[in-house]
Amino acid sequence: MNGTYRPLWLNNQGDLEVIDQTKLPHREEVALLQNSDDAVRAISDMIVRGAGVIGCVGAFGVYLAMRETKKIDDAFRARVKAIRDSRPTAVNLMWAVDRMSKALEQCSGDLVEAARSEAIAISDEEAHKSEQIAIYGADIIEELCIKHEKKSINILTHCNAGWLAVLDMGTALAPIYEAQRRGIDVHVWVDETRPRNQGANLTAWELSQAGVRHTVIADNTGGHLMQHGEVDMVITGADRVSRSGDVANKIGTYLKALAAFDNNIPFYVALPSSTFDFGIIDGVKEIPIEERSEDEVKYMQGLDGNGEVQSVLIVPQGSNALNIGFDVTPHRLITGLITERGVCDAHQQAIEAMYPEHLV
Amino acid sequence: MNGTYRPLWLNNQGDLEVIDQTKLPHREEVALLQNSDDAVRAISDMIVRGAGVIGCVGAFGVYLAMRETKKIDDAFRARVKAIRDSRPTAVNLMWAVDRMSKALEQCSGDLVEAARSEAIAISDEEAHKSEQIAIYGADIIEELCIKHEKKSINILTHCNAGWLAVLDMGTALAPIYEAQRRGIDVHVWVDETRPRNQGANLTAWELSQAGVRHTVIADNTGGHLMQHGEVDMVITGADRVSRSGDVANKIGTYLKALAAFDNNIPFYVALPSSTFDFGIIDGVKEIPIEERSEDEVKYMQGLDGNGEVQSVLIVPQGSNALNIGFDVTPHRLITGLITERGVCDAHQQAIEAMYPEHLV
Repeated sequence: MNGTYRPLWLNNQGDLEVIDQTKLPHREEVALLQNSDDAVRAISDMIVRGAGVIGCVGAFGVYLAMRETKKIDDAFRARVKAIRDSRPTAVNLMWAVDRMSKALEQCSGDLVEAARSEAIAISDEEAHKSEQIAIYGADIIEELCIKHEKKSINILTHCNAGWLAVLDMGTALAPIYEAQRRGIDVHVWVDETRPRNQGANLTAWELSQAGVRHTVIADNTGGHLMQHGEVDMVITGADRVSRSGDVANKIGTYLKALAAFDNNIPFYVALPSSTFDFGIIDGVKEIPIEERSEDEVKYMQGLDGNGEVQSVLIVPQGSNALNIGFDVTPHRLITGLITERGVCDAHQQAIEAMYPEHLV
Repeated sequence: MNGTYRPLWLNNQGDLEVIDQTKLPHREEVALLQNSDDAVRAISDMIVRGAGVIGCVGAFGVYLAMRETKKIDDAFRARVKAIRDSRPTAVNLMWAVDRMSKALEQCSGDLVEAARSEAIAISDEEAHKSEQIAIYGADIIEELCIKHEKKSINILTHCNAGWLAVLDMGTALAPIYEAQRRGIDVHVWVDETRPRNQGANLTAWELSQAGVRHTVIADNTGGHLMQHGEVDMVITGADRVSRSGDVANKIGTYLKALAAFDNNIPFYVALPSSTFDFGIIDGVKEIPIEERSEDEVKYMQGLDGNGEVQSVLIVPQGSNALNIGFDVTPHRLITGLITERGVCDAHQQAIEAMYPEHLV
């Protein structure tokens, strides 16, 4: 690790280094990305994942592509397209790649240097948004503590939307880290998040590192906990949010939103502006949903008795599996969106009022 | 395997043999239960599981206890209590043990023989109820096919309520087996069912054996499939159903019921009368819910590359987990209950009308 809360950085050779998120929590390893093909593989194989980080690696991938081609030509455009297409659902990737392309098209100086500084600018801006989300989200947590006259609070989260997913504090976890900084006793219910287990692997690891109390639960468990008053609030991240406030996020988010709604528990989604897709209204119908290899359902990775990371088959040899990466939670189930500009209703008018520059 | 669709049988020595369900789907092994302690361990360690089968093993456990003590004394009563307390949620266990005790108290002949024949009677009656459930449930499936003008039907199920759980066809799976027998093309979405993976381990194995088309999905996936018209119907089993129709079943059932309700998809629960607890009205408040070892969340068992069954750690070393076995689905979310007497609304009046002998 490099000592900061960023899962990616440029090394002295100008190559990109990333924390290999497929190895956590059992191994802390760094992967080296030296060209745009490496970036494509890192994104599609989920060595890096999380909407914000995919966007940043996409941006640095464009820089690596420019370092290879030195100019905007067909080879460069093909590399950029491969990066842009490396995962379909999180819109931050398309947003960051398009911003890189636009900056380079308008550049009259050194293209490699321009790509490098634009990618750094994107990362720094995303990190700054994360810090703003932390503040607005922690304000909600504080208000909930006051409202319920509680000194501690139980927050459920799904998947990983911490600093491994979005620099520097994350989205869903940013308010939790900030609440802890403010002295609030936070306990987090960590959804395991099958099939890739980003909750059990990454969120539990992040919270362990930060000393935040947490308990890993099977994804099936949240509804029961909500029925019995064990959840005060839900916060998740997002991979793409429509203009109307429909939220694409890790598969299973919709089920937790239904349970929160049924039990009158606030359900918040934390996201930077780069996660909005202002071109889409109906998220359920329009957001493209990634289908991944069935092997991610059929095999499970963990630490065996000898301390080795092993992959084991967990279904009968002849059975098929289906692996849908995301689902869409309709905005009617969402209490509010926590953004870098503040908290707004998950509703088209409120979103447009907060982001008036996107009014068409 | 003994060639029938029963996961338990008496061998020639009068001992109980059961399919070891902790070994499936990778190993087909039989466990030998020679005394009532063996029966207690088999139930609490989930060598046998499933409401109906727990009841039957409980009944045979009382027979094994009687074989040890030969009379109704304190030693016998202590053994019976241990069996009755071996798992708390599925009411079939208490029902079967109490029926055994009552039969033995009223017996004037050979107590061991009386225990043996009462346990066999319980098993045979449960098997017969399963066959009735199959018929009533398959009628619903046929009607749905006609209504939707479809030749095939997609049914989602959670956990395992097949013949491994309830002799001889199961509860939730019984209508599916019967529909297949009637020539309907059934495809089953098999919820993995974390943390014990009874769906991926047992339901997928049962359906493979029976040649029923099926696909294993992460528990998170059902909501998305329902939003997109990929689920025509949900059928689950039950561990305890209150007089008002609230259903305790494997943790996560409530989340699927919410999603089915939100998408206007019929949600049925299949159960024999032994699963009703007529003494309870409000299932959410009153049904005792089992908490099991956190290790069942933290470790996952599967087949490694060498064909050996391995257990691997899937959370960070220092993280805690919570393992709640069941949740309760309020009756307002349930379309109907499929019982051996027919289909009734999940509603107190309808249930009392179907089981008038339990009117107080």
